Amino acid sequence: MHEDDVARSAQLALLLEVSAYPKPGNVDRTHDFRDTSYEHFLASSVALYPVFREAAVRGNAGEPGVGALVRKGVEASIAWQRGGNTHFGALLLMIPLAMAAGAYPALDLAKLPRSAAEIMRNTTVDDAIEVYRAFPKAKVKVRRSVPELDVMDDASIEAIMKKQLTLFEILSISASYDLISRELVGGFTLSFRFAALVTEYARESRINDAITHTYLQLLAAEEDTFITLKFGPEKSRYVRDRAKQLVATGCSRDELEAFDAELVGAGLNPGSSADIIAAALFISILGGLRF
Amino acid sequence: MHEDDVARSAQLALLLEVSAYPKPGNVDRTHDFRDTSYEHFLASSVALYPVFREAAVRGNAGEPGVGALVRKGVEASIAWQRGGNTHFGALLLMIPLAMAAGAYPALDLAKLPRSAAEIMRNTTVDDAIEVYRAFPKAKVKVRRSVPELDVMDDASIEAIMKKQLTLFEILSISASYDLISRELVGGFTLSFRFAALVTEYARESRINDAITHTYLQLLAAEEDTFITLKFGPEKSRYVRDRAKQLVATGCSRDELEAFDAELVGAGLNPGSSADIIAAALFISILGGLRF
Repeated sequence: MHEDDVARSAQLALLLEVSAYPKPGNVDRTHDFRDTSYEHFLASSVALYPVFREAAVRGNAGEPGVGALVRKGVEASIAWQRGGNTHFGALLLMIPLAMAAGAYPALDLAKLPRSAAEIMRNTTVDDAIEVYRAFPKAKVKVRRSVPELDVMDDASIEAIMKKQLTLFEILSISASYDLISRELVGGFTLSFRFAALVTEYARESRINDAITHTYLQLLAAEEDTFITLKFGPEKSRYVRDRAKQLVATGCSRDELEAFDAELVGAGLNPGSSADIIAAALFISILGGLRF
Repeated sequence: MHEDDVARSAQLALLLEVSAYPKPGNVDRTHDFRDTSYEHFLASSVALYPVFREAAVRGNAGEPGVGALVRKGVEASIAWQRGGNTHFGALLLMIPLAMAAGAYPALDLAKLPRSAAEIMRNTTVDDAIEVYRAFPKAKVKVRRSVPELDVMDDASIEAIMKKQLTLFEILSISASYDLISRELVGGFTLSFRFAALVTEYARESRINDAITHTYLQLLAAEEDTFITLKFGPEKSRYVRDRAKQLVATGCSRDELEAFDAELVGAGLNPGSSADIIAAALFISILGGLRF
């Protein structure tokens, strides 16, 4: 039943992430986006369970398949809800983590970073093609590919085949401007760091507050590249600086709600940060976080 | 992958049910109980996925096991969260439904009522013993067993063995005063009726509002026996009559919130109604409800 524990951990991470509130700028249990509601995230999380389960099984068998699993995840997500992109970034992060977790007993967290990094390093041209096939289906609203492979269609897939680029190689290019790519080629550094933080906070606080505080710490530490790509670097820097202020002053519930209202009003959603928090929660739950 | 679709449908039903708000008197995304929070319900829903999946597989193979699956469900739920009873009633209803759904293609809803009823009629003494083993673990706060078998311990299990009572026979006795037992021995009448209603509402409304309106219609139609057993028949009648008034006047959001605040303040939680709404949503999602 180990594969089910990996899938459960992944799914609970997604559910806790989207439920945590107030979580400045993103969908949470108290507010929806225009086309994407809280319930769309619930349905997508449910849809992904068997995909995470398969990732754990494949990881256990030492089989490849990051790209195919990401594509399956996107297909499952859009088959179960009509709110568009909910989990593309989170899937990219969590599929290799699920494969790595499947390979070892869940509590052997010490081996997880190295194993997940290795799975990413071993990705192939096929993995790249599969992710590029998944991308248009996911309806992601900003570019997350490398500029020269930007038209997410058959043309860029042809280019990948011609140049024989692996998923790792493509992500190594986009790592310069995309937080998720940076995680994927850089050994999931932020995910593991913030997993440790949320685990620590959860010892003292309710799980919801542990998550929102961790999220704010991440916003204060890293510019959200989803915002950079959508609105430019001034905006992502502004969000980071505001988060820094809040962290410095102890971030009361009132201030957090005001920050949330401001970002939601301006349409500034730190989507990459939410994805990393989901990955961090996944690692933390694999490591035994319960409440 | 049919078993995964059954498990997904069951799990999404639980998540949507607990998330719907304002849902007078029960845990929803906007309020917790003292010991049991919204997040405990999320974690419990996640924990139950593989149990629903196994129920579908067993149903497909024509194997018995209602009682063992309920016990497994309770064990999984308490292993994944520390909020006490979250899903005992919903599990009792949804395990036979999942077994029945596993036996046929999900969309063949016409066969589901008869098949689920048959699974319940065929339950054995072993099923009864397993449910009685699960009961103390579930930490249900009111009696849901028959009076003469009330001490949920080895003594009542001995009595079951001595009298050779099947689960169906025990539930036939408690059906006189317990809504869940009545569903289980009476062919899941309310679950199917309110599944049709929520499906109809969801055509016109957001999924959250479709659920809260269906829930209110159920409160107005049936006295909640969880409240009867905990606080007496005057209270359950009062809740039903208030719900009737609200339904008659069109139930505005304000009135719904006031009713919610009143019930939460008095600790009156219509737990059986929530269980039946979860079962109704399960049937509706199996039948193709998407949003």
